[in-house]
Amino acid sequence: MTFADKIVKLTDLWQPRVIAEMNDYQFKIVRIEGDFVWHDHPETDETFIVLKGSLQIDFRDGAATVEPGQMFVVPKGMEHKPYAAEEVHMLLIEPRGTLNTGHAGGERTAQNDLWV
Amino acid sequence: MTFADKIVKLTDLWQPRVIAEMNDYQFKIVRIEGDFVWHDHPETDETFIVLKGSLQIDFRDGAATVEPGQMFVVPKGMEHKPYAAEEVHMLLIEPRGTLNTGHAGGERTAQNDLWV
Repeated sequence: MTFADKIVKLTDLWQPRVIAEMNDYQFKIVRIEGDFVWHDHPETDETFIVLKGSLQIDFRDGAATVEPGQMFVVPKGMEHKPYAAEEVHMLLIEPRGTLNTGHAGGERTAQNDLWV
Repeated sequence: MTFADKIVKLTDLWQPRVIAEMNDYQFKIVRIEGDFVWHDHPETDETFIVLKGSLQIDFRDGAATVEPGQMFVVPKGMEHKPYAAEEVHMLLIEPRGTLNTGHAGGERTAQNDLWV
């Protein structure tokens, strides 16, 4: 089954689901649309691979745009805020235990370590 | 630039090139066609994400087929042999310092840690 096949089955936005593990890292699929909260991951880099749609990653001093078939690695400790004007499907790669909101917490924090 | 754009510029088969790093892991693009050598990576899992073509990964007791838009994680220490009947473009994810032939060595061992 492809990433695309798995992602279209996700019913909720902003709720990453684990599809595979490599050592102590996890691969997570997620659907997002709209704005998120500012956060960082002080202990780890975070990788975004975009499969559908145009992902904007805002930083305090600029922004990156990541298109389908492209990847972006957000350095550890760098504040960022994902934004999707229209729905984006993507793959996240990060160490097991990494929360979607980093240490920012709040109501946007998704339950972690849920598998498809 | 997309993975596809970068991979078509690779002139040699079986020569992985680093395109990004996440913590102590590397993302490598590679074009392969034909058969490889049996090897394993005793210290790490290894992730294959196929972008084009049909990748076969032979194991001592079977084989996996990985199609475009699919991924496969070979567990650490498991002997495997990639095979591509027709050209395959893929993304490898593994710790920095991981050789393409693991500890098997030999003439198929590519120079490691070369960036695009």
